[in-house]
Amino acid sequence: MLKRNPSIANLSSGYLFPEIAKRRSAYAKAHPDAKIISLGIGNTTEPLTPHIVDGLTAAVHNLGTPEGYSGYGDEAGLTALREKIAHVLYNNLIRSDEVFVSDGAKCDIGRLQYLFGPRVNVVVQDPAYPVYVDGSVMIGAAGKSGATGYRGITYLPCTASNGFFPDVSRIKKNSLVYFCSPNNPTGAVATRPQLEQLVRQAQKTGSVIIFDSAYSAFIRDPQLPKSIYEIDGARTCAIEVNSFSKPIGFTGVRLGWTIVPSELTFADGTPVIRDWSRLTTTIFNGASNIAQYGGLASLDETGLAETRLLTDYYLENASIIRKTLLSGPFSPAGVEVYGGDNAPYVWARFPGKKSWDVFDFFLDSCHVVCTPGAGFGPAGESFIRFSSFGHREQVLEACNRLSQVHLS
Amino acid sequence: MLKRNPSIANLSSGYLFPEIAKRRSAYAKAHPDAKIISLGIGNTTEPLTPHIVDGLTAAVHNLGTPEGYSGYGDEAGLTALREKIAHVLYNNLIRSDEVFVSDGAKCDIGRLQYLFGPRVNVVVQDPAYPVYVDGSVMIGAAGKSGATGYRGITYLPCTASNGFFPDVSRIKKNSLVYFCSPNNPTGAVATRPQLEQLVRQAQKTGSVIIFDSAYSAFIRDPQLPKSIYEIDGARTCAIEVNSFSKPIGFTGVRLGWTIVPSELTFADGTPVIRDWSRLTTTIFNGASNIAQYGGLASLDETGLAETRLLTDYYLENASIIRKTLLSGPFSPAGVEVYGGDNAPYVWARFPGKKSWDVFDFFLDSCHVVCTPGAGFGPAGESFIRFSSFGHREQVLEACNRLSQVHLS
Repeated sequence: MLKRNPSIANLSSGYLFPEIAKRRSAYAKAHPDAKIISLGIGNTTEPLTPHIVDGLTAAVHNLGTPEGYSGYGDEAGLTALREKIAHVLYNNLIRSDEVFVSDGAKCDIGRLQYLFGPRVNVVVQDPAYPVYVDGSVMIGAAGKSGATGYRGITYLPCTASNGFFPDVSRIKKNSLVYFCSPNNPTGAVATRPQLEQLVRQAQKTGSVIIFDSAYSAFIRDPQLPKSIYEIDGARTCAIEVNSFSKPIGFTGVRLGWTIVPSELTFADGTPVIRDWSRLTTTIFNGASNIAQYGGLASLDETGLAETRLLTDYYLENASIIRKTLLSGPFSPAGVEVYGGDNAPYVWARFPGKKSWDVFDFFLDSCHVVCTPGAGFGPAGESFIRFSSFGHREQVLEACNRLSQVHLS
Repeated sequence: MLKRNPSIANLSSGYLFPEIAKRRSAYAKAHPDAKIISLGIGNTTEPLTPHIVDGLTAAVHNLGTPEGYSGYGDEAGLTALREKIAHVLYNNLIRSDEVFVSDGAKCDIGRLQYLFGPRVNVVVQDPAYPVYVDGSVMIGAAGKSGATGYRGITYLPCTASNGFFPDVSRIKKNSLVYFCSPNNPTGAVATRPQLEQLVRQAQKTGSVIIFDSAYSAFIRDPQLPKSIYEIDGARTCAIEVNSFSKPIGFTGVRLGWTIVPSELTFADGTPVIRDWSRLTTTIFNGASNIAQYGGLASLDETGLAETRLLTDYYLENASIIRKTLLSGPFSPAGVEVYGGDNAPYVWARFPGKKSWDVFDFFLDSCHVVCTPGAGFGPAGESFIRFSSFGHREQVLEACNRLSQVHLS
């Protein structure tokens, strides 16, 4: 019989969100009358906007005509979409042939792990989006899990005391550094001087940054960088991953992109973009062409205006959640609240409590599902992530319930 | 600087189809007046059928309404689609929770390679669809390329003398066996007794078969099995990969599926389905929901009737190509013709000639692009694959030109 892949066997437990779903449905089964509201998973709830629906509909219609039909496209995406991403979202800081359209950031992160293979020193922020760690373990770039996380992974704590920006001097030679800003789960957005520090350290150590900017559309402060390429030198040390999921509600439609600058090379001089192109043409076949026409619609004037309104809606939810956690029973109990202003996540610390205990407490006491911070890494312990992705009336109702809990 | 992933560095050359595209566009540039027709890549050309367009349109419309919107779905796909695949396409030989909907067979093969990891003995048919080999090299399950193919890969020749069904007794203990039927590129379809041989050998050796049935919708002979699960015992030794790409023209829309039976286990008893589920929830996020509703429409009565007409159309093209190669200048020159009756590919042998020479000859002499058999593996040398995916008038024109060439 074939042996189990030892790298996959190294994964210690289930992926965070399925685990939450399991606890939620067990609770629902035991309490069939409970009206559970989720502020847990970052799952969009508002309908696609009209102009994007029009773009998708036109694409479907065209595929049904002899003139408009197309089969396989370029694995890297429609030329028009690549150009529009480079122009509209990056102001031409990168070239359109450095844009690789994909079926989403999570999938691209998996393919990037495949690209770099098992022999890399993985560095993550702690807490971090689970895919950086879990995917690294699965590809064999990390070992078994221990008391302080997976062997072979360097965790850089992001805490209130460092403003959720880690000590980048701990990044050692030849590392693969996952960095997410606006951050999931902390909601922190790295400033320009902070990203300059990060890029300098990557240059100094010959490291590559995987910059996850999937939430950049939520940045409202014009001083905050939306892309790593706003930082001088990033083109020689950073890959950027981004997504249409949250800005335009494409979580289920599936569309994202990755930027691989042509200057980025491996130690032997091979351009990373060459191997990336080879890999994506071999084990990937491009994002759905329908989804791509939707993405294209989102980047013209009408689409951009709709996107702004949609992201504003979720940011207003975040603001409501923030206010709730800053008052009522929370503030007197010493609960600390972060994020939620330039990011759709609010990150709250419950001093002296375990994350999963707080999770169970909210589920039981007010039927609100949140995400336990410990699920994002050791430094997430005692924290809870609240997602702003929800219908307004549901968010208001959840906040109303939260404001009436009795914190022990 | 980060080192290049040695497994990816082991890949000897470009992926076959980009290489063909390169030669084609170089020729077009040098001969701007040439009206090139492609019978090369297996890329669908006919528009989506009306009922499927309706299914896709309704899905887009619903996503634009508060009641119909959905975000992330189950990574394994819509329950309704999984049930319909199990019921309509497998007659319940497999269960719906063993169906994993994906963005296509090629992408799933990449993820299966990720699942099994580098420590497997890879066995492929020779010739074979390049992704089995290239993906195995990239994940580190094969070494450098030599005179007889990549080190660590067992190539099982499929030639006219064995009816394009390999000597399966050469499958050794604990192998991962890629098997494609209807075959790309040879167009051969394995019979029931042949698949029984294959399954028995897999059982005997503790091997796992990755059964690629992406072209099963083209089988017209009712005696030929469309799924490996029609063979007793396959549930303990086979994973099946399939696709909506060719049957309903979804090459660009992206939709496929993989079956992982619950009885299939690793040596330590871990169900393969458990690791597959963990992997796909971690580095994949499901196929586009829009595409899934299109797939759903294709599996009701109207959709199935449309699919039949569409696949008949391509099979008629295959028949036209077959007839051309069996007559004119070809038959007297000893050209042998295979496939094309229960598969959309015609596989022709040009005795004494090199595949790429024949490719260049057709491109130059009649501006027809085909696929050099040697690109599919050592045993494909001297062969040419003709794809039946094309507009009828183009296929007729290409065949008209082909019938007038002067074979040396």
